[in-house]
Amino acid sequence: DMEQLFSKTLTVSVRTRDCEERKSSIRITVDQSTTSAHKRSLCVKLTDDSDPYFLFNLSISEEDFQSLKVQQGLLVDFSSFPQKFIELLNLCHSEQDANCPRFLLQLCSQGPAPEGLSTLSVVETNAFKHLNHLSLRLSPGSDRDVKDYLASCLARLKEDKDALELRLKKTEDDLSRQLSCTQQ
Amino acid sequence: DMEQLFSKTLTVSVRTRDCEERKSSIRITVDQSTTSAHKRSLCVKLTDDSDPYFLFNLSISEEDFQSLKVQQGLLVDFSSFPQKFIELLNLCHSEQDANCPRFLLQLCSQGPAPEGLSTLSVVETNAFKHLNHLSLRLSPGSDRDVKDYLASCLARLKEDKDALELRLKKTEDDLSRQLSCTQQ
Repeated sequence: DMEQLFSKTLTVSVRTRDCEERKSSIRITVDQSTTSAHKRSLCVKLTDDSDPYFLFNLSISEEDFQSLKVQQGLLVDFSSFPQKFIELLNLCHSEQDANCPRFLLQLCSQGPAPEGLSTLSVVETNAFKHLNHLSLRLSPGSDRDVKDYLASCLARLKEDKDALELRLKKTEDDLSRQLSCTQQ
Repeated sequence: DMEQLFSKTLTVSVRTRDCEERKSSIRITVDQSTTSAHKRSLCVKLTDDSDPYFLFNLSISEEDFQSLKVQQGLLVDFSSFPQKFIELLNLCHSEQDANCPRFLLQLCSQGPAPEGLSTLSVVETNAFKHLNHLSLRLSPGSDRDVKDYLASCLARLKEDKDALELRLKKTEDDLSRQLSCTQQ
């Protein structure tokens, strides 16, 4: 069972190993999945609407969260973590068009560009320093992950296209009906 | 360098190992590619517009063709093979809605459904027997192949959708302009 908690396109500052930095529009999706044994896990997915091959993901189980909590000194528990994470993402989203955004998303890739692990960080910048609120290590999607992601994009896009075709048909019908009314 | 020679949706009689047989609409694409060393090869691709994961392909180099020629007693050479193959596909296409099509495409899978090799055959049925005109052994696409195929589908569908959106916009503008003309 899968529930989508968040899906927005956010401005992310992407840093690759050779130190170049650029702003990218990256879609961040947060899903909560529950297995049949009532085990919950949180899935974080980064995709790029303009690059079908771009996919990073991370699945956080309750056990994964315990070590993340210790490592990063988090004070929330697993059940309230998703909400806090989404609050941080929304803070970044609300400030992303500002000149000097106080909250910023950074994606730093450790290895060579497409293969290595990448770290997504929520960074607050104040007058004194950069404060790291959260860092998550994401893995690049495998061929199979990307395949599944693209198949779901394709299905959604087909639905959109079918809906558009219906709307166009209806608009054309309206047009010709109204025209014939006028000409009578 | 890649040139598309053929791409049509054809009715194929699909047989899996457990002997069930069903008719499927399968897109067959034939491309000719030329490498920088002027080596040509023929690429045959089977896809299913309703199943994003369905992909079989075969690449035939000039050397591959020589053994195919011997095995199946072909009388044409590599340069005229594509045209002859496409003639056979068009024969199947022209007869596919007939009650008893004389030419028929068969796809038989040897192994377990998604993994194994499959054989695509062009079979003529006359009053006396089934005549096998050509059999090609296709491999199921890897995750990477399917990924690339889906990315190209997605790009094409996006173009279609953008074109539809433009047309809808134009039709709506036309409608409101004609309406305002009428009301004056």
